[in-house]
Amino acid sequence: MPSYTAPTKDMQFILHDVLNISGADIPGYGDLDAEFTGAILEEAGKISAEVLAPLNAVGDTEGCVMENGVVRTPTGFKAAFDQMSDGGWPGIDMPEDYGGMGLPYVMNTAVGEMFSASNMAFTMYQGLTHGAASAILVHGTEDQKATYLPKMVSCEWTGTMNLTESHCGTDLGLMRTKATPQGDGSYKISGQKIFISAGEHDLADNIIHLVLGKIAGGPEGIKGVSLFIVPKFLVNEDGSLGARNAATCSKVEAKMGIHGNSTCVMDYDGATGYLLGEEHKGMRAMFTMMNEARLGVGMQGLAQAEVAYQNAVEYALERLQGRDVTGAKNPDGPADPLIVHPDIRRNLMEQKSFVEGGRAFLLWGSFQIDRAHRNKDVAADGLISLLTPVIKGFLTDKGYEMTVQAQQVFGGHGYIEESGMSQFTRDARIAMIYEGANGVQALDLVGRKLAQDGGKHVMAFFDLVKGFCKENAEVEGMEEFIAPLKAASKDLQAAGMYFMQEGMKSPNNALAGSYDFMHLFGHTCLGLMWAMMAKASLAALADDTSDPAFHETKLTTGRFYMARTLPMTAMHLTRIQVGGVNVMALDPANF
Amino acid sequence: MPSYTAPTKDMQFILHDVLNISGADIPGYGDLDAEFTGAILEEAGKISAEVLAPLNAVGDTEGCVMENGVVRTPTGFKAAFDQMSDGGWPGIDMPEDYGGMGLPYVMNTAVGEMFSASNMAFTMYQGLTHGAASAILVHGTEDQKATYLPKMVSCEWTGTMNLTESHCGTDLGLMRTKATPQGDGSYKISGQKIFISAGEHDLADNIIHLVLGKIAGGPEGIKGVSLFIVPKFLVNEDGSLGARNAATCSKVEAKMGIHGNSTCVMDYDGATGYLLGEEHKGMRAMFTMMNEARLGVGMQGLAQAEVAYQNAVEYALERLQGRDVTGAKNPDGPADPLIVHPDIRRNLMEQKSFVEGGRAFLLWGSFQIDRAHRNKDVAADGLISLLTPVIKGFLTDKGYEMTVQAQQVFGGHGYIEESGMSQFTRDARIAMIYEGANGVQALDLVGRKLAQDGGKHVMAFFDLVKGFCKENAEVEGMEEFIAPLKAASKDLQAAGMYFMQEGMKSPNNALAGSYDFMHLFGHTCLGLMWAMMAKASLAALADDTSDPAFHETKLTTGRFYMARTLPMTAMHLTRIQVGGVNVMALDPANF
Repeated sequence: MPSYTAPTKDMQFILHDVLNISGADIPGYGDLDAEFTGAILEEAGKISAEVLAPLNAVGDTEGCVMENGVVRTPTGFKAAFDQMSDGGWPGIDMPEDYGGMGLPYVMNTAVGEMFSASNMAFTMYQGLTHGAASAILVHGTEDQKATYLPKMVSCEWTGTMNLTESHCGTDLGLMRTKATPQGDGSYKISGQKIFISAGEHDLADNIIHLVLGKIAGGPEGIKGVSLFIVPKFLVNEDGSLGARNAATCSKVEAKMGIHGNSTCVMDYDGATGYLLGEEHKGMRAMFTMMNEARLGVGMQGLAQAEVAYQNAVEYALERLQGRDVTGAKNPDGPADPLIVHPDIRRNLMEQKSFVEGGRAFLLWGSFQIDRAHRNKDVAADGLISLLTPVIKGFLTDKGYEMTVQAQQVFGGHGYIEESGMSQFTRDARIAMIYEGANGVQALDLVGRKLAQDGGKHVMAFFDLVKGFCKENAEVEGMEEFIAPLKAASKDLQAAGMYFMQEGMKSPNNALAGSYDFMHLFGHTCLGLMWAMMAKASLAALADDTSDPAFHETKLTTGRFYMARTLPMTAMHLTRIQVGGVNVMALDPANF
Repeated sequence: MPSYTAPTKDMQFILHDVLNISGADIPGYGDLDAEFTGAILEEAGKISAEVLAPLNAVGDTEGCVMENGVVRTPTGFKAAFDQMSDGGWPGIDMPEDYGGMGLPYVMNTAVGEMFSASNMAFTMYQGLTHGAASAILVHGTEDQKATYLPKMVSCEWTGTMNLTESHCGTDLGLMRTKATPQGDGSYKISGQKIFISAGEHDLADNIIHLVLGKIAGGPEGIKGVSLFIVPKFLVNEDGSLGARNAATCSKVEAKMGIHGNSTCVMDYDGATGYLLGEEHKGMRAMFTMMNEARLGVGMQGLAQAEVAYQNAVEYALERLQGRDVTGAKNPDGPADPLIVHPDIRRNLMEQKSFVEGGRAFLLWGSFQIDRAHRNKDVAADGLISLLTPVIKGFLTDKGYEMTVQAQQVFGGHGYIEESGMSQFTRDARIAMIYEGANGVQALDLVGRKLAQDGGKHVMAFFDLVKGFCKENAEVEGMEEFIAPLKAASKDLQAAGMYFMQEGMKSPNNALAGSYDFMHLFGHTCLGLMWAMMAKASLAALADDTSDPAFHETKLTTGRFYMARTLPMTAMHLTRIQVGGVNVMALDPANF
């Protein structure tokens, strides 16, 4: 059975040595000293390892079962769910007014990685609730906030997001769900939604569905979509539960992974709903949450890579097979451990350097979100808006790829479900798809974000890299980081230039390279993160750190990324510069 | 539910237009005119589409179930298995003396792709039997051949290969299974083997296990391993079935995929076995089959990519979502089909160009095997020996990757098991692992094959590329193929040179780049295949072919591969030339 150990030390390093959060001039950050964040991370790590991780395989094996309209979650989920609520974890970054802890988003990301790594399917029940609560927090009336938020922040009630219908996923303008005003301020909602995570289950007393639908007579397409609160049980004036609403689950899907989370077909059969936000402005309300939700999905990809990596390392240290070509390392044993073999090392180093670089990217991104929200910093808002599709698309693609590499270390044993390695890949796979499939992220990046506000945000990114390189050009030990980062940044700029020039001639020339661009950008960001971490580790070593091995390891891992992985930017640039002609040349009938 | 259409036309193109098999001076090839091979491929395609493909999901859902020591295969497998035997498919390339059709191996590969694509788990029962029968054919006594082969060629009896034990997979020298001579020419076999595909099932009257074990007193490690025939039911002198042997299945593994194939833990508890080949020469007997077995696994990777691609194309043509950025293509419908979007095209073109290039590589490789076996052509034998790890490792890695890309086209629907897209990825995943995990293939390639016979075979490959480029340098339309192929070949040579120079200093410098080298080599081979196909299509067009659309499509697809995919060789070279220092720098304790 796989195990999980929370990477507390690495998170502390990023939060304090790299980002220096307690020194940042952001409301709420002043409290975040190393001792305080360390205590939170320790506690989150403990519940992750001891409560959530042991339920991960249980959830995969048992799945969610529907009987007579009731959906039963796997054994142990309910007790663990209550324990999480008792600890206040679901509301860590929610306002204290509604029972939350009011901590910055960066802390939510840090503990979220632990929860997702130890049990992704389980954590989604809370994650969806968090998303729905955030939408109500921003767009709800005072009444709505008072009615729903205290219960949702504690996860006494959970939440869902209802977007997809069977014929429309990305293209939500095609949706058919109807909302009919009842004259009393409420609406009757009718339609079917699919792929509704946590749509029905036995973990909470009530489920607050946020449902997108069209009010008759509104604008065509996406501009006529409104968002509604549709509770499973209507809520009485005194806050007690009232009548059962006509919102029912008609099917729990059999999926490739995240079996422990119920993915439901939801039937709204004249269900009572309440408008959230303005009429026909439903997409805007949904999109408010999008940066955080997509960052959260990027985190899931990273989290699965982290736990898969941990188990691959453990196996590579224990499994005896073959001999080191340069001489036996375990001469008294029947064979040497797998980790002596160069290709196993290559594999593990790719995982390690991705996971640590990706973690820095996520926490750095969350830091930008806090700056945007808590400081109303529009530059930070623009930067994170630009990078959100990169965080989502790149981290989930690579995260998945790394779970596959981790599984490979196990040989045949990795293919057997008992090892748990298959589950990590199967669970990670969904992150490349939901919250906007990664191809859609690439389209968002190249088709929208790149040119947003006159290209200001991508220029800001280049300035950031340039500034960092300039500032650290003379620091001893940084050459190995600065030169590759400059090269990657140059490739990224060349790709952007190509899009500007050739995209004018045909948008297909740019869009055919969008996926490569997303990866080119992702690598460059991880290159920047590694350079930032190297700087912090060099400083710690110069400062006679008490833990030199940690920082030496960090530098070695970073050097590996810069030398062996970052040069992939050149390949992506080459592919981008080929343009769209060959991509679009075939008649659809000839595929 | 997914569908499958056999790519008969494409196979005919490769066999006749590209390889010109009926004109090859190889015994048995004279009969292979286009009409004859077309008839066989049509029939194989029909049974694949109509009988095997509909059972693919059934096999995945039901799996194999063990009750009271009896393993039940999924509903419909037995009837289909009998139908395949009645058609003579399992013995297509087996000698006519034993009931086979005696056709060349290249035909076995062509129909094998169809069978694997339509139902990989099912086809493995025959594939394992084929492998075991081949071992008996080469290494068995006349008595053994007469006893087992007629029944195995028809699949009345099936076969297995027993190598792995729980503590040893790649490193078979660690094996513990013991063989004790009984004085009557037989041995008692005792030990436990794991991951035995088709180890126990209800499809055949008898199962002939080939089991590796050590005879007491033999050499240590891998040099003391012998191979034994251990039938489930002993065979009487008259060929009838005798006593049940002490070879039993104690567990059927729960796996990520290929659920329709029973993966067994086999317990040999003093089972009666008969030496196959010489004492202590068991590995040699096993390795005789290795090139074919590994090529067969490469084929599985390709086959899953093919069927996944077909279904992705169908979905992309039907699913309406969003609008073409250059103007609506389906203005009367609510949206355009997915295939209008550049990133969907990019994805599908990557799949298409891989699948068609990979198919040519496989058939070309099988052609070399026929030359090696039927013409005793040592140059062909050396070439295919060199390229076997490339075929296995590259085609299964990329094949898997392409199934994942195909699944991605379906968005959320691809994650639901009902779509069948998940099964293609889960089934394809094993091909990267068994018959030697792909890291071991890379090690075999760089550590053994590259320098074999003084590097003669890799030089022969370079000469082949060089010769082709020279011969076709002036052919109009070939520039787009020759130049990239030359560049890729140059990268490959540079990598080989690096290994020669730096590998001397430390083997880790070479082995750290082995995986990249395997991929660099694979891309170069596919580049060569595409150049060969382009030449054939240009000739067909110049010759006023009756099917210009086929050949124009072939050229467009080839141009895509040469321009957008083949340049990945440069990236692999860069990574290789970084060497092993960063890869090996960390102390194992610091991972």
